[in-house]
Amino acid sequence: MASLDDYRKIVGDEIIGKIFKAATPLLGKRVIHLNSTYQGGGVAEILTSLIPLMNDVGIDVDWKILHGTLDFFTITKKFHNALQGEKLNLSEIKKRVYMECNERFSVYTHIDHDCVIVHDPQPLPLVKFFRKKQPWIWRCHVDMSNPNPELWAYLKLFILRYNEVILSNENYFKQELPVPQSCIYPSLDPLTPKNKEISDKLISKTLSKFKIPTDKPIISQISRFDKWKGTESVIEVYELVKRKVDCRLVLLGSMATDDPEGPMLYEKLTRRVMDNKDLILIAVENQILVNALQRVSSVILQKSLKEGFGLTVSESLWKGTPVVGSCVGGIPLQIIDGKNGYLVDPKNTEEWVDRVTEILRKPKLRSKMGDFGREWVKKNFLITRQLLDYINLLQRVINI
Amino acid sequence: MASLDDYRKIVGDEIIGKIFKAATPLLGKRVIHLNSTYQGGGVAEILTSLIPLMNDVGIDVDWKILHGTLDFFTITKKFHNALQGEKLNLSEIKKRVYMECNERFSVYTHIDHDCVIVHDPQPLPLVKFFRKKQPWIWRCHVDMSNPNPELWAYLKLFILRYNEVILSNENYFKQELPVPQSCIYPSLDPLTPKNKEISDKLISKTLSKFKIPTDKPIISQISRFDKWKGTESVIEVYELVKRKVDCRLVLLGSMATDDPEGPMLYEKLTRRVMDNKDLILIAVENQILVNALQRVSSVILQKSLKEGFGLTVSESLWKGTPVVGSCVGGIPLQIIDGKNGYLVDPKNTEEWVDRVTEILRKPKLRSKMGDFGREWVKKNFLITRQLLDYINLLQRVINI
Repeated sequence: MASLDDYRKIVGDEIIGKIFKAATPLLGKRVIHLNSTYQGGGVAEILTSLIPLMNDVGIDVDWKILHGTLDFFTITKKFHNALQGEKLNLSEIKKRVYMECNERFSVYTHIDHDCVIVHDPQPLPLVKFFRKKQPWIWRCHVDMSNPNPELWAYLKLFILRYNEVILSNENYFKQELPVPQSCIYPSLDPLTPKNKEISDKLISKTLSKFKIPTDKPIISQISRFDKWKGTESVIEVYELVKRKVDCRLVLLGSMATDDPEGPMLYEKLTRRVMDNKDLILIAVENQILVNALQRVSSVILQKSLKEGFGLTVSESLWKGTPVVGSCVGGIPLQIIDGKNGYLVDPKNTEEWVDRVTEILRKPKLRSKMGDFGREWVKKNFLITRQLLDYINLLQRVINI
Repeated sequence: MASLDDYRKIVGDEIIGKIFKAATPLLGKRVIHLNSTYQGGGVAEILTSLIPLMNDVGIDVDWKILHGTLDFFTITKKFHNALQGEKLNLSEIKKRVYMECNERFSVYTHIDHDCVIVHDPQPLPLVKFFRKKQPWIWRCHVDMSNPNPELWAYLKLFILRYNEVILSNENYFKQELPVPQSCIYPSLDPLTPKNKEISDKLISKTLSKFKIPTDKPIISQISRFDKWKGTESVIEVYELVKRKVDCRLVLLGSMATDDPEGPMLYEKLTRRVMDNKDLILIAVENQILVNALQRVSSVILQKSLKEGFGLTVSESLWKGTPVVGSCVGGIPLQIIDGKNGYLVDPKNTEEWVDRVTEILRKPKLRSKMGDFGREWVKKNFLITRQLLDYINLLQRVINI
């Protein structure tokens, strides 16, 4: 079972001691996290690591997931996209399904905790169906820089009942919202199969299992196959880079099952890689493969048009690999231009080609960037940092 | 929101009054149900109806689902089959995954309830990971008449810690188990889309949407497409019946996604129905379609080789349609031979043909059987009866 002790060898005694000390006033306090899935997606991944650690330091933390129907999840997916700026037909029936599902769930969810933490828009209305006895926190992981105004006005109805809103980026703060807002960056868990140290033997075994040869330098992008990730234009960049340095491109990702355009994009990509042995497209979910590929690549690209946070950048940096990434979403918080990779305008193909080529050609720069990247992540984007942020937040909100 | 009041017009004031009265000593008591899925399968269906009603009568009932990995569910599926008598390689790694998943879940599940009800084998070991402060009940919905002995010996390790075991059939009681055992039959909710009254207009609309003509009598079987349901042999019976009475057969079911043999069976069935306009095969999940088909059929078949309980029999009887069913599992509890249908040995094809033909040919018998069937279900297999069973159980176990 995960214990905070296991992180000592990574982050050092001081941080661990600080966490235990900060948690002291919260000992025995009861907290509940509510979100909409145990599996799939970054939020579930973070909670899977974070919640056992919160318990390990002595806080009694529960985790429960909302029971939604298929209709409900179709609607909340639209809400999610609309919060990120897309259009939405906010009909009365959508509102009704959204509310009813939350109300039904509230019937068999008895909350007598000292604090409630609600994640993302799906369980947001829950607060309306309880006699409030404790502070409620809304933790939103969505890019909220430019939400659909009609939906935003509707959701504020619930948000106003919360004691605090937590966002992943200061840029998402809403001036007109009379609720305290603060920012907690996502983080990665260095002990999961995706991020832990793995042996060279396991790396070779994994790469050969997925038919990735290592006789040429590898550049890669590891991202869901959806329209926001710029995957097609990564191929363009690669083709121009290859004229200067012989290398391979690996595109690794999973299908975005909730995105109807996903399979179309994947088919398109399949056709483009067909006659090119140096262009490898892999659609599987395999944490060890991600880990191995991040370690073996010379450069990683993250050519997104939009990102909530883009934690995959930190995952690559953690393995000592430089990243060339778009200056969108949370990527500029992770890439320090010239230090652990480069930040590039997603539309400036020429600069992408130059930057990737430069890193490929300069092994010393690559190694220096790799070291800096790992240290940057260690300081800023590990689960222990986020654990401390949550502890500090709870201490402030529970108001001890 | 569902309320017990809505069942008055179906079951009458006396039953409703009896339920409220029985619940009085339990008012404000806190109970938690733990199972492994909110959706899919009979258990989730029953809990979706039962738990809000338990809350409505004044018991504080929580519902939480176990957070399992894919590996975990693959293993517990094998356990499920082995409890029903199949072979199993009970390796140490299977035991470890089973235990670890339960232990992890226990970390973020704080239980201070007056009673814990654990459903089926998946969350069974949970009891080991808590300091027991209240009675624990294991509610098993599986056919346990002939469990794999090695698995049974292993699971007893956990079962012995429980205060009571609830089974769906007296035949599943285990003499050698020194834990009180009792029996609660499953039940149907007459107010769900699958079972509620629907208009003739909606019936016709639904049937025509799924291209089911009604110009000939319809016989049908409504069951998951898996090896235990005898679906292929239903086609044989139909072909022999059709020589005597012109009719159509509808086979409606969903694919058993967790059964690797499911798609093979479905393909086989597809080939058999191909050139026969009177043989209709439909693989969808649509509650209103099930409802409509159960109402419009002249006879329903349930030709299973094995059944945990086979509640679909009661669902058909509730719509006033006679059922010819195998004398296996819980079917003999639901079909009273000659009164609301016929009980037949699943291998006696000739008798199946005779019984189905008889009901098709005799509209008066059909109508009499239909009336009896509906009354039988009203008395024995409605959710209100099960609610009362649970209330009586809790009262006994909580020991007020």
